[in-house]
Amino acid sequence: MSQQIAIGMDIGGTHVRVGAFDSGGKLIAQSDASIASLKPDSGLSLIERLLHELLESLNSPALLGIGIGCTGPLDTVRGLINNPYTLKGWSNVPIVERLNKTFNVPVRLENDADAAALGEYWQGAGRDAKRLYAVTVGTGVGTSLIVDGKIYRGVDGSHPEGGHQLIDPNGPECYCGHRGCWESLISGLAISSHAQSTKNNKHLIVLAGGDPNRLDSRLVAEAARTGDPTAVQIMQKAARDFSLGIVNIISFFVPDVIVLSGGVMKSADLFLPTLKQTLKTPNPMVPFDRVKILPAQLGYYAGMYGGAYIILNEVT
Amino acid sequence: MSQQIAIGMDIGGTHVRVGAFDSGGKLIAQSDASIASLKPDSGLSLIERLLHELLESLNSPALLGIGIGCTGPLDTVRGLINNPYTLKGWSNVPIVERLNKTFNVPVRLENDADAAALGEYWQGAGRDAKRLYAVTVGTGVGTSLIVDGKIYRGVDGSHPEGGHQLIDPNGPECYCGHRGCWESLISGLAISSHAQSTKNNKHLIVLAGGDPNRLDSRLVAEAARTGDPTAVQIMQKAARDFSLGIVNIISFFVPDVIVLSGGVMKSADLFLPTLKQTLKTPNPMVPFDRVKILPAQLGYYAGMYGGAYIILNEVT
Repeated sequence: MSQQIAIGMDIGGTHVRVGAFDSGGKLIAQSDASIASLKPDSGLSLIERLLHELLESLNSPALLGIGIGCTGPLDTVRGLINNPYTLKGWSNVPIVERLNKTFNVPVRLENDADAAALGEYWQGAGRDAKRLYAVTVGTGVGTSLIVDGKIYRGVDGSHPEGGHQLIDPNGPECYCGHRGCWESLISGLAISSHAQSTKNNKHLIVLAGGDPNRLDSRLVAEAARTGDPTAVQIMQKAARDFSLGIVNIISFFVPDVIVLSGGVMKSADLFLPTLKQTLKTPNPMVPFDRVKILPAQLGYYAGMYGGAYIILNEVT
Repeated sequence: MSQQIAIGMDIGGTHVRVGAFDSGGKLIAQSDASIASLKPDSGLSLIERLLHELLESLNSPALLGIGIGCTGPLDTVRGLINNPYTLKGWSNVPIVERLNKTFNVPVRLENDADAAALGEYWQGAGRDAKRLYAVTVGTGVGTSLIVDGKIYRGVDGSHPEGGHQLIDPNGPECYCGHRGCWESLISGLAISSHAQSTKNNKHLIVLAGGDPNRLDSRLVAEAARTGDPTAVQIMQKAARDFSLGIVNIISFFVPDVIVLSGGVMKSADLFLPTLKQTLKTPNPMVPFDRVKILPAQLGYYAGMYGGAYIILNEVT
């Protein structure tokens, strides 16, 4: 009998990553490609080609299923990608139906934050945590709650958005319709926009080659590390707001583990001292000290692992 | 065979309420007494007496167990009341062990917010809601999440405290150690303390019989209804902050139902218009319009119902 494998797939705004996992959960082959600016039909064809090549490289094993983590909004129940925001033109794209027809196996579609959290639960930083809360701080802020290895879902299977919790009524306006949500204060876009609009940012603009539009959160973090006072101030503000959001996550969920990931968290060294200080505040009611806060371990591959976990959990 | 009954009990800072429920969940007898300023031993004796009398009035039915909702902090795992804050002197009181010995049946102890939420899930406003989030705004702000009829718990069985979510970094200091938590802004104490310290409160103090200390949230709400501008301003601020906290609960949980209870929510008419307006903001990601927001139906008896539900759910 040929080897049984599950496919995990991660679809982001620019890249698709696919991985083949054996039934014991070991990653045995992987592949990726750029889907930036591809329209749905070309994108789906590319994904099918990637999968065919991956399966051929493994001598056409028995395929158990395909689990996908994808940047949302999605309709996970009907299996549609509905994200014209970061996947231009991808409205109501029936990826589940299409791959199901092509490969004749179960196909599951999940929000990328949920899939990545499942990956970290399965083989990453939150291994077997009874309650895992995942926070991804990148261009935006994504969150996910995993309880006993299962994704927590809201009404109609909806995906909660802890990234849009409101923490400052005087904060910036966000596309979520409110002021001062977490994402509007700590995301990569929020940090770069703060740096672009703040006074005394001349030195920072020089670091960005004279072009304010190239002043991104990575540059601000680097400048803060060298002691640039404007950059230090911006990152300290972001670290304070980051900490307030984490306090809320602990107050609402008291999870065993909070797993941090995403581009902005590559500068975790600039966030964690403030967070530790904030969490030291004695709280008479909630055991803040029992919540572990850990960096993610699977990086860009967490969603791919999560996709495979969904399939292996379902069919084996 | 004699009738089988479950006892539900609610222990608050001033009153204890006990109810006898038949195995079909019908409340068949109830009783209550003041425990204000009673020390633990006298309090426990009073509770035992109440229970004995209740059982005798029912011709000594077969007792299935006793489920208690109690004002916290508690150690629900070890069955201890540990609340010297609102039950003076009640530190490490082994109520579960004591009632278990006296009545020789299973005894369960839960946080009062959790027990009340279970009661509303069972026979109240949130009947059979897959995800019920309960918010009690009284002297403080208590919250509880019930998923599929079970209490959501944090690390080590801890009880999350959504009432201490942070929503305004410039808000008042709270005993939780942080500034601008929900409770510090919208609780009965917060509203009365705002009224006592604000400018232009002379008319309000007259309404309180000239004694600022008697200016409580109920008086402020009444004055707001008659159009007193200071009271209107205070209640409008509380309604805005209330709405921000509800937005966060929806963003984090997207529950099927949010059940509102507690003394301050008796003035729900002053909160709900602002809340409705706030929730109308179109949100591209979370289905705010699918979350029902309902007043509690069981009032002071919700915890008693919840206690009985725990027992009936466990032993029948």
